[in-house]
Amino acid sequence: MLLIGERINGMFKDIKEAILNKDPAAVEYWAKRQTEKGAHILDVNTGPTVSKEDQPAVMEWLVKAAQAASPLPCCLDSTNPDAIEAGLKVHKGRAMINSTSADQWKMDIYFPMAVKYNAMLIGLAMNEKGVPKSAADRAALAMELIVNADMHGLPMPDLFVDPLALPANVGQDHGPEVIEAIRQIKTLADPPPRTTMGLSNVSQRCAERHLLNRTYMVLCMAAGLDSAIVDVDDELLVDAAAAAEVLLNRDIYCDSFLKTFRQR
Amino acid sequence: MLLIGERINGMFKDIKEAILNKDPAAVEYWAKRQTEKGAHILDVNTGPTVSKEDQPAVMEWLVKAAQAASPLPCCLDSTNPDAIEAGLKVHKGRAMINSTSADQWKMDIYFPMAVKYNAMLIGLAMNEKGVPKSAADRAALAMELIVNADMHGLPMPDLFVDPLALPANVGQDHGPEVIEAIRQIKTLADPPPRTTMGLSNVSQRCAERHLLNRTYMVLCMAAGLDSAIVDVDDELLVDAAAAAEVLLNRDIYCDSFLKTFRQR
Repeated sequence: MLLIGERINGMFKDIKEAILNKDPAAVEYWAKRQTEKGAHILDVNTGPTVSKEDQPAVMEWLVKAAQAASPLPCCLDSTNPDAIEAGLKVHKGRAMINSTSADQWKMDIYFPMAVKYNAMLIGLAMNEKGVPKSAADRAALAMELIVNADMHGLPMPDLFVDPLALPANVGQDHGPEVIEAIRQIKTLADPPPRTTMGLSNVSQRCAERHLLNRTYMVLCMAAGLDSAIVDVDDELLVDAAAAAEVLLNRDIYCDSFLKTFRQR
Repeated sequence: MLLIGERINGMFKDIKEAILNKDPAAVEYWAKRQTEKGAHILDVNTGPTVSKEDQPAVMEWLVKAAQAASPLPCCLDSTNPDAIEAGLKVHKGRAMINSTSADQWKMDIYFPMAVKYNAMLIGLAMNEKGVPKSAADRAALAMELIVNADMHGLPMPDLFVDPLALPANVGQDHGPEVIEAIRQIKTLADPPPRTTMGLSNVSQRCAERHLLNRTYMVLCMAAGLDSAIVDVDDELLVDAAAAAEVLLNRDIYCDSFLKTFRQR
């Protein structure tokens, strides 16, 4: 289970201020802290307050600051392809791109970019028509992502399909559809693409957010979830990921499996 | 998710002493406490120290003591059919029988007994050859239980198939097989049988027992687990069951879903 730490994002006040003041301290703090807490990749997002023209420079600065403080790769998170590419240019190791939708014009930008920079790519099971309701319609969009990966020569395990979880209080009927979509997506190619999700979405504006997040992660792992963008500061969530890996026989059991998981 | 409280069992010291001293206080305490904590059914087991001849009388006494203190039905748990029947004779409401294996001679005893007393019946996916390894072999034994339910006229939702979880430290490769077995079992009949499991088995002699128990329950719920015999005193486990019900869209989300689940 690849955990992508969500915390270096300009929507959080301390990161927003770090960006505005060009002070990398908060970025470095969260890069180090998330690394210690069990993250395998660091999501890096300029956030909503940076203007489109400034995004490439800010992304470059964020990636450099994060990688100065942590050996982990980054997941470059932006709707602006120029910002993504600016991050890729300075990134050390294999980056992840977050994300393309299943719209052809976007796939025509991001798949070649992923191949050019040897990066992994998150593909969302949505297009200009929105997020589909049923598992089958989500899987159909996943298939378009898979076809494009094949066409552009992106190795299938480097494509991470996100079936898009919705908040439990407004899209409750999507919950089991997303789980079933993951199960179907893992059967669409051999080797299959990997799967991921922005986990905190499922609990937005809900009560008991931490409980809902970790429970949904485990439900999705039963269906084949390989990765998620999460709050690794949530200790019970990381514990749940480690336990599920053992119980799904993807990690060997040992009495210290929690420690082992975090050290990897 | 039907939670069957595991605590009224002669393998626990206080219940063993209650039985030996004919003092119902501990039985009443756990009947009340498990009811408050969210149990829907109370497992009742004489435990290993009661001789075979004494089991029927002790089961009768346990059922009466439990039902004097709680409005919940009991799950009569014994390898001795005479003890089960003694419990059924004094039980108020619909009892559950725990359990038959898929051996024909046992099914010939327990299915007619369940029908005669209008009881639900747990059927184990094992026979004299032991517990099979693969999901398909577990499903094949489930099919024998289903055929017997049909033959004897037990309504399919009154059959609870237990695919038999093994401890993660000795039978780790069984973990995902059991999950897949549940998924297959739910497709074997329409309406399908229900599914259950003795959850604490999965963590026997393991570290982090509570974490493993609740994580495995959620993994199995994603595949269609309807019920489990659990420690309802484990608050995070009951929380996880409530959250999974919401996230699987089997319970309507409300901000107080934890309270609602426990009050039902």
